[in-house]
Amino acid sequence: MELLVRYLERSNSFSSALTPEVIREERLRDDLKYYFMSPCEKYRARRHIPWKMGVQILKIVMITTQLVFFGLNNQLVVSYKEENTMALKNLFIKGYSGVDEDDFSIAVYTQRDVYDSLFYVLDQYSQLGELSVGAISYAEDEDGLLLPLTVCKEYYKRGSLKPSDEAYDIDAQLETLCMEHDPRTANQWRKQNSSFFDLDFYRLVNIKVTFNLKGINLQTVRSRELPDCYSFYVMITFDNESHSGKVKLYLDIDAESSACQDWKISGTAQKNTHYLLVFDGFVILVCIISTTLCTRSIILAVRLLQRFSQFFQEHFDRKVCEDDQKEFLNGWYVLVIVSDVLTIIGSILKMEIQAKSLTSYDVCSIFLGTSTLLVWVGVIRYLGYFQKYNVLILTMKAAFPKVLRFCCCAGMIYLGYTFCGWIVLGPYHEKKYQSDGFPLTDLQKFLREHKDFPVVDDFSEKDVEPKCSTFCCCKRFPVNDDIILIS
Amino acid sequence: MELLVRYLERSNSFSSALTPEVIREERLRDDLKYYFMSPCEKYRARRHIPWKMGVQILKIVMITTQLVFFGLNNQLVVSYKEENTMALKNLFIKGYSGVDEDDFSIAVYTQRDVYDSLFYVLDQYSQLGELSVGAISYAEDEDGLLLPLTVCKEYYKRGSLKPSDEAYDIDAQLETLCMEHDPRTANQWRKQNSSFFDLDFYRLVNIKVTFNLKGINLQTVRSRELPDCYSFYVMITFDNESHSGKVKLYLDIDAESSACQDWKISGTAQKNTHYLLVFDGFVILVCIISTTLCTRSIILAVRLLQRFSQFFQEHFDRKVCEDDQKEFLNGWYVLVIVSDVLTIIGSILKMEIQAKSLTSYDVCSIFLGTSTLLVWVGVIRYLGYFQKYNVLILTMKAAFPKVLRFCCCAGMIYLGYTFCGWIVLGPYHEKKYQSDGFPLTDLQKFLREHKDFPVVDDFSEKDVEPKCSTFCCCKRFPVNDDIILIS
Amino acid sequence: MELLVRYLERSNSFSSALTPEVIREERLRDDLKYYFMSPCEKYRARRHIPWKMGVQILKIVMITTQLVFFGLNNQLVVSYKEENTMALKNLFIKGYSGVDEDDFSIAVYTQRDVYDSLFYVLDQYSQLGELSVGAISYAEDEDGLLLPLTVCKEYYKRGSLKPSDEAYDIDAQLETLCMEHDPRTANQWRKQNSSFFDLDFYRLVNIKVTFNLKGINLQTVRSRELPDCYSFYVMITFDNESHSGKVKLYLDIDAESSACQDWKISGTAQKNTHYLLVFDGFVILVCIISTTLCTRSIILAVRLLQRFSQFFQEHFDRKVCEDDQKEFLNGWYVLVIVSDVLTIIGSILKMEIQAKSLTSYDVCSIFLGTSTLLVWVGVIRYLGYFQKYNVLILTMKAAFPKVLRFCCCAGMIYLGYTFCGWIVLGPYHEKKYQSDGFPLTDLQKFLREHKDFPVVDDFSEKDVEPKCSTFCCCKRFPVNDDIILIS
Amino acid sequence: MELLVRYLERSNSFSSALTPEVIREERLRDDLKYYFMSPCEKYRARRHIPWKMGVQILKIVMITTQLVFFGLNNQLVVSYKEENTMALKNLFIKGYSGVDEDDFSIAVYTQRDVYDSLFYVLDQYSQLGELSVGAISYAEDEDGLLLPLTVCKEYYKRGSLKPSDEAYDIDAQLETLCMEHDPRTANQWRKQNSSFFDLDFYRLVNIKVTFNLKGINLQTVRSRELPDCYSFYVMITFDNESHSGKVKLYLDIDAESSACQDWKISGTAQKNTHYLLVFDGFVILVCIISTTLCTRSIILAVRLLQRFSQFFQEHFDRKVCEDDQKEFLNGWYVLVIVSDVLTIIGSILKMEIQAKSLTSYDVCSIFLGTSTLLVWVGVIRYLGYFQKYNVLILTMKAAFPKVLRFCCCAGMIYLGYTFCGWIVLGPYHEKKYQSDGFPLTDLQKFLREHKDFPVVDDFSEKDVEPKCSTFCCCKRFPVNDDIILIS
Repeated sequence: MELLVRYLERSNSFSSALTPEVIREERLRDDLKYYFMSPCEKYRARRHIPWKMGVQILKIVMITTQLVFFGLNNQLVVSYKEENTMALKNLFIKGYSGVDEDDFSIAVYTQRDVYDSLFYVLDQYSQLGELSVGAISYAEDEDGLLLPLTVCKEYYKRGSLKPSDEAYDIDAQLETLCMEHDPRTANQWRKQNSSFFDLDFYRLVNIKVTFNLKGINLQTVRSRELPDCYSFYVMITFDNESHSGKVKLYLDIDAESSACQDWKISGTAQKNTHYLLVFDGFVILVCIISTTLCTRSIILAVRLLQRFSQFFQEHFDRKVCEDDQKEFLNGWYVLVIVSDVLTIIGSILKMEIQAKSLTSYDVCSIFLGTSTLLVWVGVIRYLGYFQKYNVLILTMKAAFPKVLRFCCCAGMIYLGYTFCGWIVLGPYHEKKYQSDGFPLTDLQKFLREHKDFPVVDDFSEKDVEPKCSTFCCCKRFPVNDDIILIS
Repeated sequence: MELLVRYLERSNSFSSALTPEVIREERLRDDLKYYFMSPCEKYRARRHIPWKMGVQILKIVMITTQLVFFGLNNQLVVSYKEENTMALKNLFIKGYSGVDEDDFSIAVYTQRDVYDSLFYVLDQYSQLGELSVGAISYAEDEDGLLLPLTVCKEYYKRGSLKPSDEAYDIDAQLETLCMEHDPRTANQWRKQNSSFFDLDFYRLVNIKVTFNLKGINLQTVRSRELPDCYSFYVMITFDNESHSGKVKLYLDIDAESSACQDWKISGTAQKNTHYLLVFDGFVILVCIISTTLCTRSIILAVRLLQRFSQFFQEHFDRKVCEDDQKEFLNGWYVLVIVSDVLTIIGSILKMEIQAKSLTSYDVCSIFLGTSTLLVWVGVIRYLGYFQKYNVLILTMKAAFPKVLRFCCCAGMIYLGYTFCGWIVLGPYHEKKYQSDGFPLTDLQKFLREHKDFPVVDDFSEKDVEPKCSTFCCCKRFPVNDDIILIS
Repeated sequence: MELLVRYLERSNSFSSALTPEVIREERLRDDLKYYFMSPCEKYRARRHIPWKMGVQILKIVMITTQLVFFGLNNQLVVSYKEENTMALKNLFIKGYSGVDEDDFSIAVYTQRDVYDSLFYVLDQYSQLGELSVGAISYAEDEDGLLLPLTVCKEYYKRGSLKPSDEAYDIDAQLETLCMEHDPRTANQWRKQNSSFFDLDFYRLVNIKVTFNLKGINLQTVRSRELPDCYSFYVMITFDNESHSGKVKLYLDIDAESSACQDWKISGTAQKNTHYLLVFDGFVILVCIISTTLCTRSIILAVRLLQRFSQFFQEHFDRKVCEDDQKEFLNGWYVLVIVSDVLTIIGSILKMEIQAKSLTSYDVCSIFLGTSTLLVWVGVIRYLGYFQKYNVLILTMKAAFPKVLRFCCCAGMIYLGYTFCGWIVLGPYHEKKYQSDGFPLTDLQKFLREHKDFPVVDDFSEKDVEPKCSTFCCCKRFPVNDDIILIS
Repeated sequence: MELLVRYLERSNSFSSALTPEVIREERLRDDLKYYFMSPCEKYRARRHIPWKMGVQILKIVMITTQLVFFGLNNQLVVSYKEENTMALKNLFIKGYSGVDEDDFSIAVYTQRDVYDSLFYVLDQYSQLGELSVGAISYAEDEDGLLLPLTVCKEYYKRGSLKPSDEAYDIDAQLETLCMEHDPRTANQWRKQNSSFFDLDFYRLVNIKVTFNLKGINLQTVRSRELPDCYSFYVMITFDNESHSGKVKLYLDIDAESSACQDWKISGTAQKNTHYLLVFDGFVILVCIISTTLCTRSIILAVRLLQRFSQFFQEHFDRKVCEDDQKEFLNGWYVLVIVSDVLTIIGSILKMEIQAKSLTSYDVCSIFLGTSTLLVWVGVIRYLGYFQKYNVLILTMKAAFPKVLRFCCCAGMIYLGYTFCGWIVLGPYHEKKYQSDGFPLTDLQKFLREHKDFPVVDDFSEKDVEPKCSTFCCCKRFPVNDDIILIS
């Protein structure tokens, strides 16, 4: 750095003789100086209008606007899913209080309550049409037949427990026994299979009730968009894995949106999606321009560096030191390019979503959100052109590695404390130890929560194929060991 | 500043010859010195009694007293409105738990519950007289006829949904169908119009039940003021806009107070409002004096500055630099004048309120509150006259711009984080992200909450005119598309 | 200070000639040096055993022990009162949820609920004997007659409200109508006076049900103390003052403890109160010794100062400056003496309480608590004798006034903010503004809560005298205007 | 330190003559230098591969892995106990809301509720088999007879209270009256002993219902471990000690796990416990190696110190000063050794637990947790070898005593505040004072909670011996005074 500065300074002192060599040197010196100017100084020096800065400012405005539009839209979708989940919990879980206990919806403690809760699900499901106020109904397969509700119970293959004698005789292999039934005939069906519902709680590991529902998100009509169709894969789990006298009820929903197959709509202009698409296209255009400008600047900088180091080599027979080389690579440009690429990907995803050919709101929101974050952080660069702010930013830059180093030391102690605290205090009594202090427990909870996810996914993807009649197949469930079918 | 100080200091060294010119200069110097003295020093120098300071201290006492009186009064009004809201929610919302969920009062999930809640409102309203313990009753129009209760349902003009087939056929235009009925004949009326109450939940967007109540705030009798009359415009909304299976119930009240038309009161002195009016008048007087004194000081300072700069021009042929000019403008005086003007406006509003010709407690409280804040902040100025405090205040002054600059940088990062967090994390699960971190969501919530406000306002203002018979007109409601009238 | 130090230092340099004058000076110098030594240095210099320090350490141990004993005892009493309050609320307030809403126990919103809650109180009271699990029963007067339950309703003398017409005609004077009845005949009595219970809610201001109960705190038997007898003056208020449709129910208890009149106890040693009294006496003794020693030190210091200033006057003809004089007054001694006096008063009170001749636990706990706080703060002094701690303490001493000054400035801004916030934000919606930020609201709440206290006090003190038959006198209630008696 | 450094530095300057003496000195100097090198420098100097460092890194990985395995296992056990406690509370406590109030489960306020809750326990217990969904049943003695349920009531021997007359006559001695009954015949048994259940609430101090249950933790089958058998010693207490009208219900469980006596399991590999045992053995081995290496280093250091001080004695006739001696004792080695010892003990305990010969999860988790904490803290040492981190660590080292000293001063004030606050504010109203500020109250609460523990312990240990028939002996209960037996 010092070398570079000295070189630039010396330039003013002796430049009397005008040999071609001197002219070349002088031009390099000018270019270097110009390169390290702020947009304002550049304008003063060569009347260079700061296009790049203008593009950046335009970009901030456009990206933020785009994000707000997308966010409002996204929130509609998320709230639709959440409200449906809440509605289904209220419909199907007996005695649901409106808030989940811990990570399950409710816990029951007596055999009576287990039976009641189970039959409640079946009853409510069979009269869903008269019950629900939402736009949902039973799912159908391709032939127009209603998809059946499936009840599966998983239990130890053999198991006689005599806790009084401290004796047990168990076959640890799990057996899964399933039944399917037509949604609308719960009552007679329950009586016919009363043996299935005769649960041996000592052996029972869990009961899973699964069914599919279809819904239409009419809400979006009002914001002049086409309504989406949703498939809800609902799984209600009675979890008795721990055999501790506490049966936990979970209701998991996997909602999947898609364009509706057959629709007719009238009475709404439904044009402004076109405007939105044009706007998104314009955002992409601006980002491409911004990327191009920044790439050009980087290329110019690299070329300048080459000229400079060649000149140095020739005249002083020395290499340009590494710190000086670094000065030529402007980190801000890299930031801008990264942000632009993210925005372009995000915008394309957004357009796809609007065209109903994609439904991955989450991925898109990550791209757009991150790019907006980077763009706003990039504003700090322009603040750096003001003298007083510059001091602040340089101070921050200098302090950063020290802070990082301190965090590293503290991190070691924290890691030790985390492990120690988790094992010594974690499992006991207080919730706060479990959730606040010890990330490990969170991890564990996360794992526990998402344990069933592959199951649900499997189930939901393959859900359309099985063409078996009522009371028969259960291919879609992950069969650990054996499955006995009642047909 | 330095120039000024040097000039003042030099004054003591050479002042031997007493030409008129020198005398004039000497007088200017004296005036300048005097101008920059604290009240205490002024008293010592010219036995000038600090009237201005006295007035300020008197003002603090009086404004604070006034504010406390007004605040106690204001709280009575606010608590009356709040308790009425709470009472009406308990009367009309079935299963109301005493606290609002989120921003709605309660949510229902089954068709049965929707009907029950709706009929509950009608039933309770028809027997309001025997039910409520408060001083409220049905509102009447000018002819002494009871104003009717109105039930409006809004739905999609045409709409057949088949979620099972992923098919829908919708006319996105909204139709509003309304009914009015006499408050006291709910039961027979409900039977006669059973078709109206046959809701098609797939098409239904919302149901709005609106009615007017009148109340008298007797509470103020005890603080020896005249009771106010209140009109309550109540709107109960069953919101099914999202069609997600969750119907939200809102109860919005727009309370409007006015002087009662026909009153007779005995057994209470009811005189001290006069005292209060006199006190308010006195506050205004003090504020006018304070403003006058401060304006005078500012004018004197400007004149002194003119003399000083003229003198400078003549003798040194130099302009007084800007920093020195700034020293002549005392920011505290501006603060005092602003605070005085606010107080005067606030006091006039307060007197109007006490005379029952205005009811805008909110506006008045903002004026009085802000002025009191400024007056107390103004006390810091007098602390500045003590040597040691002065150091403190100067330090604060110096640190302020740096702190501001830091906030500016942090603000950029925060803005980026806000947008990013809102879009990526915001809509998901946890309430805390929605309310804590991301102001955008708050904004959104605010917009959602006040979406209905213009409606309510329209409705409440025009509410008195429509003279139509029962079961007929609905002019007062904002008719989006069509309205079919059942007459 | 400097003068003093210089004087002490000079002492070592020239002390060759031994004239009587020099000897006297030398002795003064020695005494001065000795005076400013720490206990440790004193011991090294003159083998002076640090009695004072020993006494202080002993005192800390003893006072803390005493406080712990008293605290455990105090908590028994407080928890007895609290549990009784909770039990009575559960017995007499219909639908009590176990926690008070805001500052009232529960709120009712319909006429039906008001009647139900009122009759519930009467019913429950009439069958108290079979109901309560605690050691309470009805209070008796001197003749062994049960004290009656009193129901008072307060209402506007005249009042016809027509909210529909915005019309009212009110006599703001309040009338109080009371009834008394024998505890055990609620049912028939209610029927006989059905007109009394025909409430006109427009005029009704409040209903007060008052009765007396007696209880015995048996719990203390187990800690080998005599059980106390308690009188509970219970007042249940139905507050309709605001006429807002929300009737608030308060249950206030005024518990008064006294020694039981007639008791016989066996099977317990009941001796250790004697030990406690002896211990308290010992604490008082130690405190007296400590006070004496400190007073002596102060007197010696004053004498030394006199000698020193006299010497100064004679030799240098100068006065000892004020700062040096201050060095002679040891602030710690004053602290110790204040703490000792508080302890002595507290201990005497404690002994009286143990001897059952006093029951003012609150006053005693303030004395003992404050003295313990001071004693522990006094420990810092001994830390000051260690070199390194001393630096810390001196720094604290120096920083204190600056911190205070800053707080003063911040205080002004806070005051302004408080007033402004209270008036502008305070009365609205959120509880947190009311309780957190704005002390004024707390004050107001406090005033509201304790509004009824003088009533309760009056009532409880004069409670024993009135000898009137059932259904008659109401002397004990503060009669604002008129009282009509139903006899 | 300086001396040492100077000595080491001088070594380079003059070492020309090679007398044996000089060689010996030179070798000492080399050894000293080598001793104070970092592992990296040692490797460069003598190609010494840093075994010790490698072992430490291996140890961190292994110990952390071990801890995670143990923690997951431990959590299963803890959650099993907690879920059982929760299940039993829901089964046996009438009206249990799912969360404990304060430290008791629920409080009842009327005689009716006390009887109901008591009979509810008996009823539920008698039909436990049809009720519970968990793997629990009644406990049996050796002869295969079911262990009886015991109801004990404790009351004052004699006691007639007349609160109305402020009179009482009490024998403070406590009498305990017990009954036992066969689990399955509650109804008839309750009728036959109706006199026992005729409670005199004035005299009643508490009722204790105790019974034993047996359970099997089947959950561990799924993680391929053998299920443990559990004994639950349940005690339900109706606490009327305070006679304040509030009877508190506690349900205390003492769970004890042991290997089941008679088991047969199939269908699971159940091999990986062997792997775990091998892994634990390997951890122990690594720890032994680590300890050995560190001990060797310490011994070498001591020997080097001896050589150095001997050399110093001979050549300079001076002792090595204490600070320099301290430099030879490496605190990190001590830390490593302590951590190793803890790990070894913890691992042995863990192996015992896995082999089902021990069940003290708590003790083991403290050993393993602490050792992991120390190991991670030890990582800081290796960070200290990097130049920049070293500065940080040295700064921390220097600041530590000052921080400690400050805490000491603040601690004194806090202690005083604690005592004062506890006594003055503590017992009143607000829960937050009781739990937040004042540790004393926590202590007190702790003592109150664990008051019954010895009782439970006694009871659970001796629980197996008494062979008395139903309705007879109560040896197992701590009999304070007398016990009357109903036989």
